[in-house]
Amino acid sequence: MTNPVLVEVERGHRVESCHRGAVAVVDTHGHSPLVLGDGTRPIFPRSAVKALQALPLIETGAVDRFGWGEEELALAASSHSGEPAHIAGVGRMLERCGLDATALACGPHWPLNQAAAHALARAGLQPSALHNNCSGKHAGFICVACAAGLAHAGYVSAAHPVQREVRAVIEGLTGMTLSEVAVDGCSAPTWAVPLTNLAQAFARFATGDGLAPARAKAAARLRGACAAKPFFAAGTGRFCTVVMEALGERIYVKAGAEGVLCAALPQQGLGIAVKCEDGAARGAEVVMAALIARFLPLETVDRPLLESLMRPALRNWNGIKVGALRPVALLTTAS
Amino acid sequence: MTNPVLVEVERGHRVESCHRGAVAVVDTHGHSPLVLGDGTRPIFPRSAVKALQALPLIETGAVDRFGWGEEELALAASSHSGEPAHIAGVGRMLERCGLDATALACGPHWPLNQAAAHALARAGLQPSALHNNCSGKHAGFICVACAAGLAHAGYVSAAHPVQREVRAVIEGLTGMTLSEVAVDGCSAPTWAVPLTNLAQAFARFATGDGLAPARAKAAARLRGACAAKPFFAAGTGRFCTVVMEALGERIYVKAGAEGVLCAALPQQGLGIAVKCEDGAARGAEVVMAALIARFLPLETVDRPLLESLMRPALRNWNGIKVGALRPVALLTTAS
Repeated sequence: MTNPVLVEVERGHRVESCHRGAVAVVDTHGHSPLVLGDGTRPIFPRSAVKALQALPLIETGAVDRFGWGEEELALAASSHSGEPAHIAGVGRMLERCGLDATALACGPHWPLNQAAAHALARAGLQPSALHNNCSGKHAGFICVACAAGLAHAGYVSAAHPVQREVRAVIEGLTGMTLSEVAVDGCSAPTWAVPLTNLAQAFARFATGDGLAPARAKAAARLRGACAAKPFFAAGTGRFCTVVMEALGERIYVKAGAEGVLCAALPQQGLGIAVKCEDGAARGAEVVMAALIARFLPLETVDRPLLESLMRPALRNWNGIKVGALRPVALLTTAS
Repeated sequence: MTNPVLVEVERGHRVESCHRGAVAVVDTHGHSPLVLGDGTRPIFPRSAVKALQALPLIETGAVDRFGWGEEELALAASSHSGEPAHIAGVGRMLERCGLDATALACGPHWPLNQAAAHALARAGLQPSALHNNCSGKHAGFICVACAAGLAHAGYVSAAHPVQREVRAVIEGLTGMTLSEVAVDGCSAPTWAVPLTNLAQAFARFATGDGLAPARAKAAARLRGACAAKPFFAAGTGRFCTVVMEALGERIYVKAGAEGVLCAALPQQGLGIAVKCEDGAARGAEVVMAALIARFLPLETVDRPLLESLMRPALRNWNGIKVGALRPVALLTTAS
């Protein structure tokens, strides 16, 4: 099936570009108040499932054994911007395990945050694996291995006990057997999941319904950590941070590469999964903002932010507004 | 009409994302050996028409009056990467007109080239309008105004004599009246043009057929300057530079924002215009590489480069190949 246009990019008075994709909003029982496009086709969720990948960290007791707090938990589920507090946090996480950046298998890249990248360059430095946006997740994997007395070497292999545990957790939450794997940008496994199963996993993550008590408790603790420390889940000005800063425990939201965005709405018992078919983050963000505005009863104080995320202005290098993105009526109008 | 999928992005053994769009390959008479998707819908060509916007510079004699050579001409039609030689070149262009960076109305941004951006940061500096990828085009506009004895202030307004002349040139090449304008990223006007007219304009730019002799000569001179100095048309590792470095005078190719790519094939008498509907440069580049391989008789020595541009590997932060982009059969197979 052809995925519908979900977002239009307007310049002047013309739609200059558009983003197609699929959306699934699902409750813990698998009922779907909204599915647009192909919800059955498996997608790679990429970093959008970092919270699920971090659950073994709590369930195994590793996080308490090494004395990690909310910042470290949020970092373990983060795609961070490589800002100084992120780097310090991941360094601290590794240090508590008696390790350093050399244990990380994610590879280096310049910080996503431009000011942080330029500060690093100004200091005459090169980025290390700590600056990789996935370094917190990797520190979490390493911590699980260390707490279990396992060698952490090879922890990104799908055959390593840590990844087998992560796979089992995602299977439990999605309610399906995972069989198709690819390599993520940070070298960790990414498992293909249909969008509707992914959304249902986030409904379970939101509520704990249908999960064993220890897993439900771990999910609540992770959501709480990200709600308390949203800066550590992404970074300055980033979509996930901005949304969780504003909405607190009413939402958990997490982006993945190639246009994936997932969210959990605890009070509504809903999970949301979005995939822009072209891989565009800007498209997925507009879609998610529209879905939040539709499914989460907003307070008056929340509306201006959600409006700015749903219809972000395009400004040129002189700051002149030259256009805007906007969600299509399919997203904003209940049928 | 729904634009077809033109490019697939594969990770592991699955298509993770895809890019839809439209393509027009047209000769000077308006005959089209290939149109895919909606070739009649107007698009904003953005920076893809910088060569057409630079023609008045040659036609009015401004370029010779100020003693600009091939590097300056290529820069006037460039979206440069802000590398040191680009900045020096644009500075020299303005200096020859008795001006400096304060005359530029394009606004500042960090160099597109990462090493150049980091070098600037390392020196404790901020970018100026010189670093804007459009600064060469703007220096060209200013030069046209100065040579004609006009005030250059306000040169980005559609009502300024320079922009009226640019509009007339694009009307001549596209064979249509331009009526719909928007503001580009650099504040200059961008005129909406159907993809088939845009491709025909590049066929005329390629051959001079149907143009007044002075315009045909100006087009040939500009193509020659870019073929001789392809680094100054874009920058290190950029698609347009890499293609023109390899293929020389056999092609002129220029990218624009939001997934636009245009090319002129002088020996074949063809113009090509590509628009990825989602605005993705990576998609447009794969499409253009496939069209070059299809319509330009390649020499054996050219094939490995074209193959690498048609099917670029996706590598993760550890340099591991995790997937690839590829053009669909519609593009690679003559019907």
